Amino acid sequence: MPEEERLNIVTCTAPVNIAVIKYWGKRDEELILPINSSLSVTLHQDQLKTTTTVATSRSFQEDRIWLNGKEEDITHPRLQSCLREIRRLARKRRNDGDPGLNSNGLSHRVHICSVNNFPTAAGLASSAAGFACLVYTLAQAFGVEGELSGIARQGSGSACRSIYGGFVQWIMGKEDDGKDSVAQQVEPENYWPELRILVLVASAERKPVGSTSGMQTSVQTSCLLKHRAESVVPDRMVQMIDAVKRKDFTVFAELTMKDSNQFHATCLDTYPPIFYLNHVSRQVINLVHRYNRHYGETRVAYTFDAGPNAVIFTLQQHVPEFVKVVQHFFPPDTNGGQFIKGLPVDCASLSEDLEQAIGLEPMPKGISYMISTKAGPGPCIVEDSSQHLLGPDGLPKITV
Amino acid sequence: MPEEERLNIVTCTAPVNIAVIKYWGKRDEELILPINSSLSVTLHQDQLKTTTTVATSRSFQEDRIWLNGKEEDITHPRLQSCLREIRRLARKRRNDGDPGLNSNGLSHRVHICSVNNFPTAAGLASSAAGFACLVYTLAQAFGVEGELSGIARQGSGSACRSIYGGFVQWIMGKEDDGKDSVAQQVEPENYWPELRILVLVASAERKPVGSTSGMQTSVQTSCLLKHRAESVVPDRMVQMIDAVKRKDFTVFAELTMKDSNQFHATCLDTYPPIFYLNHVSRQVINLVHRYNRHYGETRVAYTFDAGPNAVIFTLQQHVPEFVKVVQHFFPPDTNGGQFIKGLPVDCASLSEDLEQAIGLEPMPKGISYMISTKAGPGPCIVEDSSQHLLGPDGLPKITV
Repeated sequence: MPEEERLNIVTCTAPVNIAVIKYWGKRDEELILPINSSLSVTLHQDQLKTTTTVATSRSFQEDRIWLNGKEEDITHPRLQSCLREIRRLARKRRNDGDPGLNSNGLSHRVHICSVNNFPTAAGLASSAAGFACLVYTLAQAFGVEGELSGIARQGSGSACRSIYGGFVQWIMGKEDDGKDSVAQQVEPENYWPELRILVLVASAERKPVGSTSGMQTSVQTSCLLKHRAESVVPDRMVQMIDAVKRKDFTVFAELTMKDSNQFHATCLDTYPPIFYLNHVSRQVINLVHRYNRHYGETRVAYTFDAGPNAVIFTLQQHVPEFVKVVQHFFPPDTNGGQFIKGLPVDCASLSEDLEQAIGLEPMPKGISYMISTKAGPGPCIVEDSSQHLLGPDGLPKITV
Repeated sequence: MPEEERLNIVTCTAPVNIAVIKYWGKRDEELILPINSSLSVTLHQDQLKTTTTVATSRSFQEDRIWLNGKEEDITHPRLQSCLREIRRLARKRRNDGDPGLNSNGLSHRVHICSVNNFPTAAGLASSAAGFACLVYTLAQAFGVEGELSGIARQGSGSACRSIYGGFVQWIMGKEDDGKDSVAQQVEPENYWPELRILVLVASAERKPVGSTSGMQTSVQTSCLLKHRAESVVPDRMVQMIDAVKRKDFTVFAELTMKDSNQFHATCLDTYPPIFYLNHVSRQVINLVHRYNRHYGETRVAYTFDAGPNAVIFTLQQHVPEFVKVVQHFFPPDTNGGQFIKGLPVDCASLSEDLEQAIGLEPMPKGISYMISTKAGPGPCIVEDSSQHLLGPDGLPKITV
C-alpha cells in the first residue's frame, strides 16, 4: 500500500463521570464555560465506557463520524470545535518544530467511529464519555499531547472531567477565552478503594428536558441558581475536596446528597419548572435517608443528574445489604435479564428490623437494573488492533 | 335564669386563605414571626369556612374546646397564647375604663366549639381558618376590638391573613416582640371580581411532613431558603401588590407560579429533603404550562402549599374550558359524588387542537374533586342564634 493511502488508525476508551458537586449553567454558551466549579468521580470503564476509533488517510474525501453504528452529522458545532482545536494544536506543534510529529496527517480528513458499552436509554451522561473519548483519540491520531480537558469541555462541559480518572474537579476559571476553565485530578482512582458506586437505572417514563436547554432556562429564570453558583458552591468545593482527601465518607455523602438536592431545587425554581426526579427517584431518596437513620450514620448517599436514575455511593462493606434493600423495595421484573450488572455483589439478608424501619411500600419494577462499579481511570489507548471500530477501508466494521 | 349563670354566647365564621407569595420559615418559634412577608387571597366562605362558637359563663369550671365534634386539649401552647392575649386585651380595655365592656365575663371560663365545612382530608390549611375564627370569636365574646391579626398569628402564622378578606399581606415586621408582624388588607374581596379560584383536591397518598417541623428543618438546613427570604421575597411582595392593584393577571399568575415553585425548591433543598408535590401535582403543573403555551398567554396559574393539592387562579371567562381540560386529563371516579363543588361552572367543549397541544397521558382519579370559588370576605358574626354550635348547657349540640 502506498504511503499516502495508508490508514493512520488509533482506538481509545474513555469513562463516564458522575458529579457530586453539580455543574448546571453556562456563562458562555459557545466556549462552554460554567457558572460554577464542579467535582466528579470517574466511573470504572470495566462497567461503563465509550470506545472511539479515529482514522486519518490521504484517501478520505471528508470528515465523517459514526455514533453507535449510525452515521451522524459531522458539521455539528461542538464536534467542529473539538476537531478544530485538536488540529490547531497539531499545527502549533509542527510549527514549533516537534521532530516526532507525522506532519503528513495534518491535512488528512478523519473518520471517527464511537460506541458505548451501555444503552443510551440508561440515561447516563454518555456525551461526557463520548466527547472525552473523541478528543483523547483525536489527540493520539494527530500526535497532540498536553492539556486536553479544555478541548473536551468545548464538546460537552462535563466531558472535561472524563479526561482524568479518580476524583476530578472542573475549575470554572475566570478568563473570557476559557483558557483557565479546565479539569484537574484531585486524587487518583485507587486513592479510596473502599468507595463503591451503584447506578440504579430507573424505568424511564419519557425523555426529560435536555440538559443544554434546561440549564439555559435555569440561568435565565432561577434566582436560586445564581445564588447557588456564587455563594454556595465555592464553599462546597473546598469541603468536598477536603472530604475526598481525608476519605471522610460522612461528609462526602452528605454533601453529595445536599448538592444533588440543591441542583434539582434550582430546576424546580426554573420557569417553567423542570422535573428530573420522578416517583422512583423520590422513593430512592426516602429509602436512603431511612436506611441511614436506622443505623444512625450516613452509610449511603444518592445523587441524580438530569434524569431519574440514582447513582449511589457507599463503602464496600455496606454494598451487599444495601443492594438487598434495593431489591426488596424495588422488586425486579423476573422476566428480565440480570438485575445486578458489573462488579459481583455478595448475598446478604435483610433483617425484619431494617425492613420495618424503612417501611416503604415496595415499588415493583421501579428500577430496571443496577450497575455495580467503583472509581476508575481516565482514557486509555487500546493496543489490540483487532478492537478498532473502523476497518482497513476506513468504514465502520459494524453498522446498524 | 340568674345573671351569673346566663351564657354569653357568640358564633362567627372565618375563611381559608391561599398564599401567592409563600410563608415558609420562622425567625421566632414561640411568637410565630416569619423570615419573610407573604401575600394571600382569602377564599370565599360560601365554599370554605370554619364556624366557631364561644360561650362564657360563671358556671363553667374550666376552659374547654371541641374541634370537629371531638374534645381537644385546651392546654395546647398555641391555643393558650390566643386565649391569654385576648384576655389581656380585655383586661386592658377594662382598665382603660371602656364603659361598653361587660367586665363580668373577664373571669369566666370559656367553652369553644369549632367545625369546618370542608373535610380535613382536603389538605387545605384548616389551621389558618381555625385560629382566625377562634381569635375573632373570642374577641367578640370578651368585647375586644382592634387589631386581631397579631393574636391569630400566635395561633398559626398564616391565620393572621384570614382575619381580612380579599387580598391580604402579612408584613413580617422587625421588632423582637412581634408587635409589627401583622396582616393588612391590600384590596377588598370585590376589587377583582373576574378572578376565580379552583381548588383541585388530589387523591392523597399519605400524610406529608407537617409544616411546623418542615419549616424548622428548612430554616436550619436550606441555604436557598435564607437567600429567598432575604433577597427574593421583598421584591416579589412589591411586584405582587402592584399586580393586584393593577389587576394584571399575567404578572399575578406568573409570580404566583414562580413563588410556589421556589417554595417547593427550598423544601427540596432542605436536608433531608421534603417533597410536597406528588405525580398528580407535577401533572397539574405541566398541564397549566401547556395550556398557557397553547394560547400564547398566561390564562391560568397554580400554587401548592405543604401538600399535593393545586389551587388554580384564572379569570372567569376561562373557567369552563379549563375545568373541562382538568376533567379530561384527570378523568373523575364515576362512582363518587359530584366532581365540581362550589360555584357553578358552565359547560364547555374541549377542542382537539387543545387536547393535542396538552398531550399528556390522562391520569384517572388523580384528582378527587374540585371546589370552584373566588375571593371572599374576612370573619363574620353569625346573627342567627340557631346556628350556635354550643347548646344552652354550654356543651356541643353535635358530637361524633
